[in-house]
This record gives sequence, structure tokens and C-alpha cells, in this order.
Amino acid sequence: MGKLNLVAEPGTYEIRMWRDFDAPRERVFKAYTDPTLIPKWWGPKIYTTIVEKMDVKPGGLWRYVQRDADGNEFAFYGVYHDIVSPERIISTFEFAGMPGHVLLSTLTLEEVDGKTRVTDSSVFQTVADRDGMLQSGMEEGATEGWDRFEALLRTM
Amino acid sequence: MGKLNLVAEPGTYEIRMWRDFDAPRERVFKAYTDPTLIPKWWGPKIYTTIVEKMDVKPGGLWRYVQRDADGNEFAFYGVYHDIVSPERIISTFEFAGMPGHVLLSTLTLEEVDGKTRVTDSSVFQTVADRDGMLQSGMEEGATEGWDRFEALLRTM
Repeated sequence: MGKLNLVAEPGTYEIRMWRDFDAPRERVFKAYTDPTLIPKWWGPKIYTTIVEKMDVKPGGLWRYVQRDADGNEFAFYGVYHDIVSPERIISTFEFAGMPGHVLLSTLTLEEVDGKTRVTDSSVFQTVADRDGMLQSGMEEGATEGWDRFEALLRTM
Repeated sequence: MGKLNLVAEPGTYEIRMWRDFDAPRERVFKAYTDPTLIPKWWGPKIYTTIVEKMDVKPGGLWRYVQRDADGNEFAFYGVYHDIVSPERIISTFEFAGMPGHVLLSTLTLEEVDGKTRVTDSSVFQTVADRDGMLQSGMEEGATEGWDRFEALLRTM
């Protein structure tokens, strides 16, 4: 099983994560860009994820809602800046609970030793925003999301 | 006349610039969002700026082309993430000469002592990209652009 790597150097604006997946790059790209697949892996398993919008093209909007067992909802949204299949997705990301706080995500897919390395670099508007994201339990959430992602890739 | 302030601390991902303009916030917002006004102030005066696309809404695309006296063209483009009139514009920015190198721009308009303070914060994907932008003469370009912007505001 792959391992999550995470770098967030003190005082910088960035969180960079990467992990190798034993699947062809096209399949990994599809798992990121097919709206029917997102609910199968995005975020922790205890939430239900609903894809309200996902228009995978420059300027396309995306909006996911996570719902917990009590019916509480958490919305996340942004726009796609750039889509280069099967190499790169650049997009913005905002949590509805913190409007105006936006990050720029650059997702890169590379072939490394017959596997696909996914690198997810997020840059925030401030160091404080970056640190807040780390403290919100992002690493655990990302680890679980990518574990589910890996399981999904095996079924595709 | 207002003065450009620029902060780019060593080793960070950000360039932050701000300047006060003697005009109401609504007018300043209009000068940023009206496609017919952009060619009157955006960038150095020696270039002709053509607004090819400018759809001011979340997910809207923008694309400006600068043409020099010899007919050489330089294209810049991105998408709007968020538009909050007359307070805030969050968008992405890419130069066609460096595809894949993208910055996230947060433009904030505040009323300060009867003037409008415009703060333009750009965060880059890497420190190297940030430093490259500084070395490309960004400060001079921004100073001239904002001088033209101030002159335009007086005529509106």
C-alpha cells in the first residue's frame, strides 16, 4: 500500500502531499475527474459526499457537499483553472465555513517506476490559513481519502 | 498622488501591493470589472491591451493580450473564483509564456479615510515563481499601471 508524504515547512504558504498509486496514469486521472467516482473516495468515509457541480474544464465550477449522520452539511467549492489530461489539474478551493479564504491547488500526475505519483500542492493566501488547514486534521483526512482512492483504483 | 507599497518578504510565496486612490469604492471596483476600461490602464502604456474575454463572475474566464509596436503579442489569462462587489475579486493569473505557472490573486477594496485602498495579494506556487515575477520588472509595471488607473478614475 502507498504511503502519504506531507511537507509543510514552517512559515511557508504551502502544503505539499504526494503518494504513489499502482495504477496507470489515465485511470488515476479518471478517478479525479469523473463526478460519479468522487463520492466513492473523497474525504472521510463517515461522511456522505454529494457532487452538486463538477464541470471539468477551465472556468468550470465544482461544488461538493459532505453530510454527516446527523444531517449536518459542509460545502466545498471552487473553479478549475486548467485541465491537462492526464497530467495536471489546477483549481481553487474554498470551504463555505470560511468564505474569502481560498487556496490554489496544483495536482500533478507523473509516471514513476511503473506507478503513478500524485502530487497535490496547495498554496494559501496566508501562513495562518495554511496552519489552520493543518490543524483541522487535514493529514488524517487526506490519508483516509487516498486510502479509499487506492481501493477504488483496484476496482476500476 | 498615491504611492505604491510593495511587500515581498524573502523566502515567501507572496507579493502584496497596495495603494490608496482618491475615489469612491464603487468607482474603483468598476474600473477593475468593466472590460471597456481595462485597456485604458492595464499594464505599461507602450503596449496596446486587448480584452479578448472578461466574464466577471465565478468561473468566468478572462484573457488579455498585450501588443507592442512591432506586433509581438503577450497573452495573460485566468478565471474568476469569486466576485464580491465592491469589496473583493479573487482570480487566477497565468502568462501564456509560462504555462502551468499560476498565481492566485486576491484584490481587496477598503474604505480608508475617505479614500479607497486597493490591496493586491498574489500567492505563487513556489518561491522561485514569486522571485521570477519580481525580477521581470513587476514593480515598475504595477506602478505605471496604477498611475494610469488613478488618472482614469479622475475622468470617470
